[in-house]
Amino acid sequence: MRIRGWLADPRTRRGGAPAAYFRPRPLRPRLPVTATAPSAATSIDSSLVTQYRAVRSRTEVLCAPLALEDYVVQSMPDVSPTKWHLAHTTWFFETFVLVPHAAGYRVANPDYAFLFNSYYVQAGARHARASRGYISRPTVDNVFGYREYVDSAMAELLTQAGDADLAALQPLVEIGLNHEQQHQELMLTDIKHVLSVNPLRPAYRAATHDAPERVATPARWVAHDGGLQWIGHAGPGFAYDNESPRHRVWLEPFALASRAVTNAEYQEFIADGGYDRAELWLSLGWAEVEAQRWRAPFYWEQRGGEWWMFTLAGLRRVAPDEPVCHVSYFEADAYARWAGCRLPTEAEWEHAAVSQAIAGNFVESERYHPVAAGDAGEGPQQIYGDVWEWTQSSYAPYPGFRTAAGALGEYNGKFMCNQYVLRGGSCATPVSHIRPTYRNFFPPGATWQFSGIRLARDT
Amino acid sequence: MRIRGWLADPRTRRGGAPAAYFRPRPLRPRLPVTATAPSAATSIDSSLVTQYRAVRSRTEVLCAPLALEDYVVQSMPDVSPTKWHLAHTTWFFETFVLVPHAAGYRVANPDYAFLFNSYYVQAGARHARASRGYISRPTVDNVFGYREYVDSAMAELLTQAGDADLAALQPLVEIGLNHEQQHQELMLTDIKHVLSVNPLRPAYRAATHDAPERVATPARWVAHDGGLQWIGHAGPGFAYDNESPRHRVWLEPFALASRAVTNAEYQEFIADGGYDRAELWLSLGWAEVEAQRWRAPFYWEQRGGEWWMFTLAGLRRVAPDEPVCHVSYFEADAYARWAGCRLPTEAEWEHAAVSQAIAGNFVESERYHPVAAGDAGEGPQQIYGDVWEWTQSSYAPYPGFRTAAGALGEYNGKFMCNQYVLRGGSCATPVSHIRPTYRNFFPPGATWQFSGIRLARDT
Amino acid sequence: MRIRGWLADPRTRRGGAPAAYFRPRPLRPRLPVTATAPSAATSIDSSLVTQYRAVRSRTEVLCAPLALEDYVVQSMPDVSPTKWHLAHTTWFFETFVLVPHAAGYRVANPDYAFLFNSYYVQAGARHARASRGYISRPTVDNVFGYREYVDSAMAELLTQAGDADLAALQPLVEIGLNHEQQHQELMLTDIKHVLSVNPLRPAYRAATHDAPERVATPARWVAHDGGLQWIGHAGPGFAYDNESPRHRVWLEPFALASRAVTNAEYQEFIADGGYDRAELWLSLGWAEVEAQRWRAPFYWEQRGGEWWMFTLAGLRRVAPDEPVCHVSYFEADAYARWAGCRLPTEAEWEHAAVSQAIAGNFVESERYHPVAAGDAGEGPQQIYGDVWEWTQSSYAPYPGFRTAAGALGEYNGKFMCNQYVLRGGSCATPVSHIRPTYRNFFPPGATWQFSGIRLARDT
Amino acid sequence: MRIRGWLADPRTRRGGAPAAYFRPRPLRPRLPVTATAPSAATSIDSSLVTQYRAVRSRTEVLCAPLALEDYVVQSMPDVSPTKWHLAHTTWFFETFVLVPHAAGYRVANPDYAFLFNSYYVQAGARHARASRGYISRPTVDNVFGYREYVDSAMAELLTQAGDADLAALQPLVEIGLNHEQQHQELMLTDIKHVLSVNPLRPAYRAATHDAPERVATPARWVAHDGGLQWIGHAGPGFAYDNESPRHRVWLEPFALASRAVTNAEYQEFIADGGYDRAELWLSLGWAEVEAQRWRAPFYWEQRGGEWWMFTLAGLRRVAPDEPVCHVSYFEADAYARWAGCRLPTEAEWEHAAVSQAIAGNFVESERYHPVAAGDAGEGPQQIYGDVWEWTQSSYAPYPGFRTAAGALGEYNGKFMCNQYVLRGGSCATPVSHIRPTYRNFFPPGATWQFSGIRLARDT
Repeated sequence: MRIRGWLADPRTRRGGAPAAYFRPRPLRPRLPVTATAPSAATSIDSSLVTQYRAVRSRTEVLCAPLALEDYVVQSMPDVSPTKWHLAHTTWFFETFVLVPHAAGYRVANPDYAFLFNSYYVQAGARHARASRGYISRPTVDNVFGYREYVDSAMAELLTQAGDADLAALQPLVEIGLNHEQQHQELMLTDIKHVLSVNPLRPAYRAATHDAPERVATPARWVAHDGGLQWIGHAGPGFAYDNESPRHRVWLEPFALASRAVTNAEYQEFIADGGYDRAELWLSLGWAEVEAQRWRAPFYWEQRGGEWWMFTLAGLRRVAPDEPVCHVSYFEADAYARWAGCRLPTEAEWEHAAVSQAIAGNFVESERYHPVAAGDAGEGPQQIYGDVWEWTQSSYAPYPGFRTAAGALGEYNGKFMCNQYVLRGGSCATPVSHIRPTYRNFFPPGATWQFSGIRLARDT
Repeated sequence: MRIRGWLADPRTRRGGAPAAYFRPRPLRPRLPVTATAPSAATSIDSSLVTQYRAVRSRTEVLCAPLALEDYVVQSMPDVSPTKWHLAHTTWFFETFVLVPHAAGYRVANPDYAFLFNSYYVQAGARHARASRGYISRPTVDNVFGYREYVDSAMAELLTQAGDADLAALQPLVEIGLNHEQQHQELMLTDIKHVLSVNPLRPAYRAATHDAPERVATPARWVAHDGGLQWIGHAGPGFAYDNESPRHRVWLEPFALASRAVTNAEYQEFIADGGYDRAELWLSLGWAEVEAQRWRAPFYWEQRGGEWWMFTLAGLRRVAPDEPVCHVSYFEADAYARWAGCRLPTEAEWEHAAVSQAIAGNFVESERYHPVAAGDAGEGPQQIYGDVWEWTQSSYAPYPGFRTAAGALGEYNGKFMCNQYVLRGGSCATPVSHIRPTYRNFFPPGATWQFSGIRLARDT
Repeated sequence: MRIRGWLADPRTRRGGAPAAYFRPRPLRPRLPVTATAPSAATSIDSSLVTQYRAVRSRTEVLCAPLALEDYVVQSMPDVSPTKWHLAHTTWFFETFVLVPHAAGYRVANPDYAFLFNSYYVQAGARHARASRGYISRPTVDNVFGYREYVDSAMAELLTQAGDADLAALQPLVEIGLNHEQQHQELMLTDIKHVLSVNPLRPAYRAATHDAPERVATPARWVAHDGGLQWIGHAGPGFAYDNESPRHRVWLEPFALASRAVTNAEYQEFIADGGYDRAELWLSLGWAEVEAQRWRAPFYWEQRGGEWWMFTLAGLRRVAPDEPVCHVSYFEADAYARWAGCRLPTEAEWEHAAVSQAIAGNFVESERYHPVAAGDAGEGPQQIYGDVWEWTQSSYAPYPGFRTAAGALGEYNGKFMCNQYVLRGGSCATPVSHIRPTYRNFFPPGATWQFSGIRLARDT
Repeated sequence: MRIRGWLADPRTRRGGAPAAYFRPRPLRPRLPVTATAPSAATSIDSSLVTQYRAVRSRTEVLCAPLALEDYVVQSMPDVSPTKWHLAHTTWFFETFVLVPHAAGYRVANPDYAFLFNSYYVQAGARHARASRGYISRPTVDNVFGYREYVDSAMAELLTQAGDADLAALQPLVEIGLNHEQQHQELMLTDIKHVLSVNPLRPAYRAATHDAPERVATPARWVAHDGGLQWIGHAGPGFAYDNESPRHRVWLEPFALASRAVTNAEYQEFIADGGYDRAELWLSLGWAEVEAQRWRAPFYWEQRGGEWWMFTLAGLRRVAPDEPVCHVSYFEADAYARWAGCRLPTEAEWEHAAVSQAIAGNFVESERYHPVAAGDAGEGPQQIYGDVWEWTQSSYAPYPGFRTAAGALGEYNGKFMCNQYVLRGGSCATPVSHIRPTYRNFFPPGATWQFSGIRLARDT
């Protein structure tokens, strides 16, 4: 499909070198967060272009608290500079929507594909991931210009397309927007890391102070009968390919804890020698404990005999009733073993979650930090939001899974090895991005995501 | 349980320093392989002491072709010196049978626990795995003396124990003998690696030349209906804890290839650019291809435009009809994707294998190399023996799995992370060691085991 | 010595938190290079405060072409971000002049000592060198504010000090200004590296195009008789401690080439298999050639069968008559061996240079690139400026050398191991910074400095 | 020069495969050390063949205490297996004497050149140094057979050569014998390391107990006037190329300590925080202290609050009056700085040593350990033997130095970078191997040699 008329609008016609396009423009946004932008993003009946604008602007809103220097830094290979996230998500639309489908579209800069392709081997050669922090140019202003250039083209494409074209474009735009939302979360977890390694421990924004005092409700066991159950995406909304095909699994009876493990509970594990007792750990996990000298969750540090933790609002005392966060799979597994329990499988988790309303502490709360579980009656709490919950399930293809042809087929499938599934979203996830069948995945040693623990046991 | 009378036999009474025990003795065995030893080991009704002697002597028989220098070398961290295998398996009986259960038993040398404990954290401090090749003492003769010392004590313990004691000892001795059999296979795969890195490419023993000419039968699909099936160990014989609990899994209909993938078939994959096409590989696998410059299975090398491979009988031309061997999980997975198929899950494999007779090309054939599949009528071939078959299943606990208390609980459970399950045994496995529920496991990049490929597909 | 009156100026009185000081200020300088600034810096009779202002402003002038993002990046551990250079040189004056000598002075920010101490162990704990690129805050504006704060204090100190105090301050300020000049050169070599690793190959500034066409004069040998000669600093001007004591050395008769080796000459070495012939190389050098796959000087790359090189004016064809630049000691040594010559010792070099006028292609030319040697009659050319010249001399203490007590004693002495001496300054060196006795030093594998080759031979 | 008649002796005529040569032979030597062998090696008027036999047999005598397993291990990349030393020194004679000069000579095994060439790039491809411990074959017996084969050929060559041929062979044989003596010392330092990393701490041989009680004489300063002095080899005996050309150096007046620094003196440095005070160290040295957590000389370990050290006679309490040994250049330099002194330059050392008799504690004493300095009247003690003495001089070519053409030119010259000169020989050096002009060299972090400290100062 090539959509005609792209060249019809003289504003977008480009003559000479790509750089010429980037006319003087206001510096990167310093807008306050608007209340309506996120809700627009969640509106199911909004038009595609409205959704596009909402999600794209939400990305830029997240940048508002940053100094320009913050956009540039890559503090470890897993982290990408904010500047890179802004450009990569833009390249995604350019490469997978505009280039194949917008007739006459010319790429903003032919060098950007090399710089901003993340891992799509079939989309061409790309810059080394660990070297993203060495790239001072294009500047942040250039990158915002790149976004503007692509956004204009996307808006034109989406507003001028007929119904048939729109139907064809919708799956691509949807994956692009979901991709952008994933990077919104990564921008927050990455900038948290960047700021945390700075001896000055600068904050992303001031603390809201509304949460630390809250007292978590006591944990209960919520039992499930198991049996032959369906899991996986059933439609009709958007889902990633890794959530399909829907299929049956046999579950033995089990129970899940009613809420996430708290900092106070995790501190009991520490106090009981959790980080000194090899028998509680997977062998690879114990190797990490020894090699990295782990003594507490990531971002915790001791000051004057007390545990503090780095948050996006700066250093704060560890609040006992908040969910423990930034733990690895290894720590989650060791904690569960210490507690005489285990982690849920992803099928158990999904079976328990599918009946719950999608509500909780998401990025829209602008807390950027998990909060203590409130009272929620009989049912489970914190299933969605707050912290991603490690499952014991290795990230693997569902029965019958096939990757799509072409570069977009690399989105999920090729990572199905040596990673573990997390479920439920976090305080950095857009609420419109999550669903019961959603499978997030990270290597078992990863700690810089908002990852926590929900216990399970056999019944 | 402490068995009395250990000190009654003056031969085993030890006065002064442990070293005094090691009287002059004939050097390490150079016996020919006897036909009866292996069959004795498989006899189900033989007494425990007879089984003990058979398995232990089989270990030593495998050493017969070695030069003394061969026992010392550790050619990579995954490999252990033969000398270490001989001592570690002995330490296992000393630590888990003799010390707790033989009244008055004195350890052969108190320093050996540090040197020969592999990974049992609860059994005390231990030498660094990657440094096993730096240890010239105890000498090989010392280690054979250590075996003799422990074997005498074991024989006395087992022959003098009453029925009740024997019943109590049996599970420990059984795990010790199965452990020893695992190390018999590792001794072969490790010495193969040691000899292979030597530019002289020395052979472990002369070639038998009985197999390479054989023509493999064409592969067929063997279909299975799936449904709700039981897998896992059902008793009454020995099984490792990781094969339990027996439990139900839901299987969609599937088919398995009737035999393992051959070298000729794998060469088509190579010829079709298999090692150049990133889209065929898992992301971690492709990283290995690039970092290690993989171009063919491990042990293959090109000489004069032809593929040769290193075997325990030295360098040999790649025989087209033999099963491809020494491939990683990554290669098995990429090959399957290239072929439009997939790897079986371990549940599918077990369901298909449970009805098959345990027969095939095992270590007792003394080929130490897989052979082309013969004609076997309707059913599948090579299910047992020849090559371990990679499954797509991450090595994980079965529902309800609990590790035993104490150091022996570390045997399997703590390795359930970032490893993949292989099934069916190989040409280096003792036939009495394998069963349909047996779960072997290695990291996805491992290639120095006799590991091959059986294709699967949805039906 | 504590100089009173620091608090007298209300502009510099600081009440609350350090951050409060940094009032809104114009962004980093974008001034054109002024013709007078550098000449002021070289004026010998200017007052100390005038010298101070000239050198300090020259540092900021060098930043004018940079984008703000360029200040942040550390492209390899040897490179420091421009931002860090700006702050570190400021910390140097604060720590070694203001804190001990300006009564009532309060440090701009107590955290800066940790961030901006380079390697002075006796000046306290410091940030890891290789992590300087992870630090987004303080921002570039903060750092310029830090400079302004310290410059104001320095100006007040120097203008209000009496003659006796000034005499005492002069050595400290002089070392601080020479230190700043060293960092001016490092800023250029570091930003060259930062821009070079960017696939976009951005330029620091536009090319001047005045040099590449020039034809180098043929090289001649300039002979020296040798004998017992004095080398080392003889006063009265400033020199580093490593240039003393002045002492005698015995020199055999020798000759030096009249100019530096050119790119064309070096290309003959390449064409003759220079990078393939181990016998031309020091053993450690050959290991580098193999490990790093060196095939040409650093910053050279082949495009369309031709050699191009990255310069501060962007990619340019290698100009045959320019001095070869960015070669390691290993390459200089191998080239000399290939040419049947050797490198000079530093004593030979100094003996030959001491009679030459200090003139040449320095940073004040604003070429930031070496140029072909012009005609200079009988004498040697390019002794000063263009490229630092590797000598064969290991960097070692002169007989009788003693380091000063305290942190400033760490300036030079502790680096006298595994480094080699370079002489004469480069196109990035301020002319007022160089002298015949000046000893620069780098490890033998270093290539990111403007380092070249002058041949020597026995006569 | 091709010496005829090699094929005349039927014993050395070889028909088929090289391996056929190695007839059954008695295992590696277990002879007692003979009193006459070493003295024969030092006799200046003995015939070349007698010298050859004496040096070669001395190498084998050093092996007598070893278990066969000890020959195989490489405990770090700097260490070579004893087996490798035995073969490499043999390959040296085969390659540089027999192949070019013995008409009709056939190499023992064409594969050995690859395995046993150390670093002679011009002598062909070679095995990776760090992988020497992976090579179990050829066996130790094979290697002794290789020695016997080459020794027979060498004996025949040397006994049948006419005077003219002998004169031509002599320089090659001499360098081969000196090379062998260097490897005798390395065999001892390497096997010491191999045994030391074994948790059993096995001894090379029983302690002699004749030395530890001796009390060192107090250290005095021995003054020298300096001035213009000649250093370097003056003939007529053997010397390495790096000892030439003889040349003049200017020396300022200086003094050397009359003996080496003792363990007791070094312990004062430790007690005074020597390993905690960065200001005492070269920057690279301090980095090693921190990275390797150095707290004492290599081979020292604390047991029950006391310092013990590993020796070739096993673990022993540190004897206070023995010379401190196994210190790096960094430690020697830091100790000297702490003591308010410095290390000597190699020219100072040589000037002071040239008048001293070559006598002391060498390998012939069979102590393999330094002993406390006895009383020696006015002059210096321990100039020769006991411990190699670090000088402050970087290993560099003497003025006018040229390497020889061909592979033997790689013997010394290519290592003249980032190494420091040691002088005087050690308790592991053959007495006939040392001379005042002898230059040993190691990187500044090396500790596994018998290296110690002699202080110097300006006067």
